[in-house]
Amino acid sequence: MDFRIDGLQYARWSEKIFRQMREGGLDAVHATVAYHENFRETVAVLEQWNRWFERFPDLIFPGRWAGDVERARATGRTAIFFGAQNPSPLEDDIGLVEILHTLGLRFLQLSYNNQSLLATGCYEAEDPGLTRMGREVIREMNRVGLVVDMSHSAERSTLEAAELSERPIVVSHANPQAWAPARRNKSDAVLRAVTGSGGLVGFSLYPHHLRGGPDCSLEDFSRMVAEAAERYGAEHLAIGSDLCQDQPDRIVEWMRSGRWTKEVDFGEGSAEAPGFPPQPEWFRDNRDFPRLAEGLAGAGLGPAEIDGILGGNWYCFFAENFPPQDAPLPG
Amino acid sequence: MDFRIDGLQYARWSEKIFRQMREGGLDAVHATVAYHENFRETVAVLEQWNRWFERFPDLIFPGRWAGDVERARATGRTAIFFGAQNPSPLEDDIGLVEILHTLGLRFLQLSYNNQSLLATGCYEAEDPGLTRMGREVIREMNRVGLVVDMSHSAERSTLEAAELSERPIVVSHANPQAWAPARRNKSDAVLRAVTGSGGLVGFSLYPHHLRGGPDCSLEDFSRMVAEAAERYGAEHLAIGSDLCQDQPDRIVEWMRSGRWTKEVDFGEGSAEAPGFPPQPEWFRDNRDFPRLAEGLAGAGLGPAEIDGILGGNWYCFFAENFPPQDAPLPG
Repeated sequence: MDFRIDGLQYARWSEKIFRQMREGGLDAVHATVAYHENFRETVAVLEQWNRWFERFPDLIFPGRWAGDVERARATGRTAIFFGAQNPSPLEDDIGLVEILHTLGLRFLQLSYNNQSLLATGCYEAEDPGLTRMGREVIREMNRVGLVVDMSHSAERSTLEAAELSERPIVVSHANPQAWAPARRNKSDAVLRAVTGSGGLVGFSLYPHHLRGGPDCSLEDFSRMVAEAAERYGAEHLAIGSDLCQDQPDRIVEWMRSGRWTKEVDFGEGSAEAPGFPPQPEWFRDNRDFPRLAEGLAGAGLGPAEIDGILGGNWYCFFAENFPPQDAPLPG
Repeated sequence: MDFRIDGLQYARWSEKIFRQMREGGLDAVHATVAYHENFRETVAVLEQWNRWFERFPDLIFPGRWAGDVERARATGRTAIFFGAQNPSPLEDDIGLVEILHTLGLRFLQLSYNNQSLLATGCYEAEDPGLTRMGREVIREMNRVGLVVDMSHSAERSTLEAAELSERPIVVSHANPQAWAPARRNKSDAVLRAVTGSGGLVGFSLYPHHLRGGPDCSLEDFSRMVAEAAERYGAEHLAIGSDLCQDQPDRIVEWMRSGRWTKEVDFGEGSAEAPGFPPQPEWFRDNRDFPRLAEGLAGAGLGPAEIDGILGGNWYCFFAENFPPQDAPLPG
């Protein structure tokens, strides 16, 4: 299976970007629809997506199941799968888990950078693990087929989610801390727990997650992936580029500060460099997705491993984990 | 000052109850307007209160400042002060702190029984203390004059709130754990921290917080208060009866289970006794407020101490803590 799937993007979507997805050969993209948006605001984002699907039916369509990745390949389009980087669309209401899945949501992070009602974010000083509501919500997510994503969550919360979840969990976009010691990157224990759950880790191309930032080379990145393949198994690895193409800096302000502070939280940035960092020259946008295959080949990975990492592993994961537990072959 | 103030009630409000407040001589009552309600739902509760104020102007009116307690006494009515038992009306938006204060909210619990975006509730297994957002929100609450109430919060979160808050904090309704070892009651360390901050502890008459439950005697309750007066100073003690008069049992289900679980959380109750417990015979409703004075006198407290505990201390606290920091004498 040589599908090409990017496990996380949050671009300022446009016809240009949808065309670039086609140029890059992407069969599917997991698109973020919420950072701090509540349920109603998230629905408004889905409405905007419906307008795009209506306007650009030759380029994109809504992805719901693994079969949509095959349909995308067969029809020369890109299937867009939705996810939320914070449980804010869930508000305080466990009943919204199933509603959001019905609306097409397939990934839900149990926290962004801060403490949520479910779990702890990686910027909190303490991490008490999953909350009472978090435990209830994981069970419900397992039931309906909404994937637990711990990309921005703190260590203990992530380990507990991997342990408690009956279905595999993912880190859709992050890199190993041992390679680049960013707060958002993951420890060996977390990477083992996630891959050991049968889940996937999507490697990030967001400069703050790369060793050397925007100056990181494709060779260095690819070597890191190859080493992770040896350590965790190539079948558990994927890409979640975290591409934030064309976004104005007010968007990274929204991601970091939301509505929770009257100050400015600089997150991975700083007062001197508060905006989006520049992309590495070898991954400017979707058109560069094929270069990743070259890099991984250069690092010694074989064609089947590369096909898995660049899309086949996500495809298998979608097939196994998007359908509800009690209705394995829905709609 | 012989004002009579109840520092927490959540009745199924009616003309009957407003008349009983008058019979009991209550100059002011802190009324809960939210358990799990979000901002818009809380506003709907305030709308309902506006209808009551319009219908019963000879019995009740909206309390905003300490002066309204004097006005209540002078005009033979009861001033109703609003509070929330969960930060759910704040949603994820620090800007709502000032909006809620403008709408009349004077007390806000940083958590109910579960983890909130701000602090931990007393039913969570772990208590990591205040969150990032919690620290920001306390500063904003201090600024606008919205009182931090930790009645349902966990130990460490409460101690940190007492430490961080520049203005006194309260436990509006709970009793000492040493007297009745309920999860919702408070340790000596918490009672010392709250009273040491210049704050108040309102003793609860909710049966689950009483030694012996509904069978607790007025004498035993009053002795507990007298001992607390020796230990923490009578000027830091008050009443927060937690009276839930006339509420149907579906309300206690809402309080406990909200929208966070598909199961039933029995909280302080049990599968065998899931509903509201019966009140002790000596505090059935507002008409019995004067009996508390008899009880406290029997336990050896003097008239000035009793007047403070039954209302004067809340009056002084309102005067000091409801006005915004930068506008000491508003409206």
